[in-house]
Amino acid sequence: MMFNLILSDVPELKLQEQIYQRIRSAILSGSLKPGTRLPSSRALADQIGVARNTVILAYDLLQSEGYVSTRRGAGCFVVPLNPEPASSVPKQAAGGAAIMPQRSRRRVPSIPFAAPMQVPVNAAHDIDFAYAGSDRGGFPLSARRRLTMEKLSRGATHFQRHGNPAGDPDLRSSIVDHLASARGIQTSVNSVVITAGSREGLSLLARVLLYPGATVIVEDPCHRTAAFLLESAGARLIPVPVDTAGLMVDRIPQHEAAFIHTMPSHQFPTGATLSRGRRAALLRRAAEIGAYVVENDYDCDFRYDEPPLAAVASLDRDDRVIHLGSFSRALGDGLRLGFMVLPEELIEPVSAAKSFTTGEQTWLDQAVVAEFIRTGAYARHLRRLRQIYRERRDTLVQALASAFGSAAVIAGAGGGMHVICQLAESLGSAKDVTEAASAKGVGIYGLTAASARMVVPPPGAAQTLLLGYANLEPNEIAEGIARLGSVARPR
Amino acid sequence: MMFNLILSDVPELKLQEQIYQRIRSAILSGSLKPGTRLPSSRALADQIGVARNTVILAYDLLQSEGYVSTRRGAGCFVVPLNPEPASSVPKQAAGGAAIMPQRSRRRVPSIPFAAPMQVPVNAAHDIDFAYAGSDRGGFPLSARRRLTMEKLSRGATHFQRHGNPAGDPDLRSSIVDHLASARGIQTSVNSVVITAGSREGLSLLARVLLYPGATVIVEDPCHRTAAFLLESAGARLIPVPVDTAGLMVDRIPQHEAAFIHTMPSHQFPTGATLSRGRRAALLRRAAEIGAYVVENDYDCDFRYDEPPLAAVASLDRDDRVIHLGSFSRALGDGLRLGFMVLPEELIEPVSAAKSFTTGEQTWLDQAVVAEFIRTGAYARHLRRLRQIYRERRDTLVQALASAFGSAAVIAGAGGGMHVICQLAESLGSAKDVTEAASAKGVGIYGLTAASARMVVPPPGAAQTLLLGYANLEPNEIAEGIARLGSVARPR
Repeated sequence: MMFNLILSDVPELKLQEQIYQRIRSAILSGSLKPGTRLPSSRALADQIGVARNTVILAYDLLQSEGYVSTRRGAGCFVVPLNPEPASSVPKQAAGGAAIMPQRSRRRVPSIPFAAPMQVPVNAAHDIDFAYAGSDRGGFPLSARRRLTMEKLSRGATHFQRHGNPAGDPDLRSSIVDHLASARGIQTSVNSVVITAGSREGLSLLARVLLYPGATVIVEDPCHRTAAFLLESAGARLIPVPVDTAGLMVDRIPQHEAAFIHTMPSHQFPTGATLSRGRRAALLRRAAEIGAYVVENDYDCDFRYDEPPLAAVASLDRDDRVIHLGSFSRALGDGLRLGFMVLPEELIEPVSAAKSFTTGEQTWLDQAVVAEFIRTGAYARHLRRLRQIYRERRDTLVQALASAFGSAAVIAGAGGGMHVICQLAESLGSAKDVTEAASAKGVGIYGLTAASARMVVPPPGAAQTLLLGYANLEPNEIAEGIARLGSVARPR
Repeated sequence: MMFNLILSDVPELKLQEQIYQRIRSAILSGSLKPGTRLPSSRALADQIGVARNTVILAYDLLQSEGYVSTRRGAGCFVVPLNPEPASSVPKQAAGGAAIMPQRSRRRVPSIPFAAPMQVPVNAAHDIDFAYAGSDRGGFPLSARRRLTMEKLSRGATHFQRHGNPAGDPDLRSSIVDHLASARGIQTSVNSVVITAGSREGLSLLARVLLYPGATVIVEDPCHRTAAFLLESAGARLIPVPVDTAGLMVDRIPQHEAAFIHTMPSHQFPTGATLSRGRRAALLRRAAEIGAYVVENDYDCDFRYDEPPLAAVASLDRDDRVIHLGSFSRALGDGLRLGFMVLPEELIEPVSAAKSFTTGEQTWLDQAVVAEFIRTGAYARHLRRLRQIYRERRDTLVQALASAFGSAAVIAGAGGGMHVICQLAESLGSAKDVTEAASAKGVGIYGLTAASARMVVPPPGAAQTLLLGYANLEPNEIAEGIARLGSVARPR
């Protein structure tokens, strides 16, 4: 089989990443058709002169993302990317009635396959500022192996029976201790429910608290997935604007609501941190309108210039705040572990909803993470990641400043894993810049492309880019922004 | 601390199980109060003369079920069993409005904590015929360890990024092969979505296909959890009776419905197998009313006297059957892996719903099970389990026959992990027998206690027991039924 693969000589881009990206690009563009057999890892390694293991790692990644599939002994094949679209003509059943009558389809999600989770990444980009995932390092693999073996050697009974739907008591206890020191939240094991991530936390709340026509206050802009999830439960969303101090609490209408959904640590997409004054005001306003506060704290662990503000949940004297956390940012999206800290009256219904929808999270991962936290290794890991991400953040901010000077206004750089960059109008729109950068192999995204949902676009939205940096090495960041600077010039 | 623990001399009941049950019983009865520190494993082992590891295993189990919790270096403590009930008086907020207005609570599940998953097990029973879980052996631990290490040594990238929300392609491919040989179902990797179990499969279908007022046809009797899940999505359930040949298909009304939920292999709770003729009739009727068929095939792997009937999905020429499977029965409830086989038009919406509610299942377990199936070890494991369960089933059926003769009519013994036993009225009601058996340390349950939901109770329901046997050794089964025979005597 003819199989051309020319590797870039940018040394910073790991060889396996290049192989992965080139093959993925060929699949996406259709030049590698479904059913095509890839060369064996050994053959490809010989052909392009890399270690066989490098090819294996690239193939693993392609497989984990569903681009290729291994058949027993027969090799590695390209799989069809998407199912064929369903026929738009309803099929006729034997008795003549339409199958899938329109009303039974009413709740079929109208979103494309997996769309809410994925930033549109163009495989041709060798440097991609997509906002997604955590550092390539993630959960330290040697620690994971050791802890997994330890737990596996004693955990036989845990595989046999259902655990507590609220989660492994050890993990919940570790989280209680971590939240006390890291976020100032005083809680107890009973109040913590382990989930598959903050997304499942929100999904469980939708099940328990929402009904068709229920009102939810959301930030504007906010993350598209969260908004979609709430709407699919029948909720009516009331968008409230966000400024540089976070959610504009005094703009929350005097309207009864099931809850207020907010991201106070590092708002998505604006990167704003909710100010101390507004945190207290938020609790007062929530009490006035009889709403819970859902504090989605998914990337709270990364603050670079000053200690993080205490969580809204830590200020709560009224058992009103539902705190959603996730290990995805620090330990990898693939881990599928997060948690909720719940007001007392919601513990039982949320646990029951977890129990009859998915059941408890699998025990082994919980036990491993519990021990990782308990021994202090997690806190050390977070410190290490903070250093790595701070360096990347610094590189990005400096590169933007030297490329654009005062023509670029940066926001949201104090924490999280992305910054917002508003370009002067003279540089063209975000869309223009994005397209020009893409032609140079650099993935850069405007707010909408980066999964933001905007009801009333904030000032300058059309000039605003969202730049994720956690997945890029400093030299990749510098190179990417240099290329961006070369295409985005005053007109 | 005073800590009495007298072990039974029934040698068949494993020591660790006895320790576990005695301590759990003391916690449930309140004689061990929350906050009480258990003796160290070493101290208890010395006191009662068992190996320390036996105590550790018992403590592990108590901890995994949330009865006790380990604090760093301080030992093992009894945790409060349930959160305090929420105050029934609405709290007054600062502004005077009631917090948690009634309508924001409308969808709070009205079921007790974790109730739908658990049979009411009395800790005082040393022999328990509760229907739950799989054999104590479950997933062979040595194979699990070996495969886990293998996968961990190569899978770093899988932990970092989201996988395909539909699941690991290798696992889906293994399932396709398994279903072809075991269930006669011809399908493709694209049609399979990996879930946290058949329960999540049903939950995803509820999200995608149901809306308030939608109609679902269910079996009567059926499993309480499934019914509750569908009702909590707003569906109106139409119950259709079950007889010894399964769902009475000709009683399905001519009424449009989103789907028909059925358990053709071994119906819960009746144990009936849907006859060949009715399988074809079911597909015809479903076409007439424009409904999908949801084939919940969760314990299909265990048929003892003859080969299983081909799955309803294998007869489907109309892309109408949604097939739900689970690894819980064969590999343990704690594994949290199941799958759906979907009609083409549902692949995209179900994958999307999975993506924005829980995301994909964690990769490691998927990869391990994929390899376990691929190598043939899963098929061998199923054969071994079938032998074990058949012996238990035989012991139970013989014990019932010798204890009660013609006063006990047994049904559902051809497969699955439980039988139905209808006692003659002269022996008293199921409730009487249950209570008398409980006093002898034997857990026996009537249909309702065993999680069945009955709209129109079938004939003899008040005399009917549901006996799970997969978790009991043959000598425990014989002893348990002998004790039952001694208390349930003609009056």
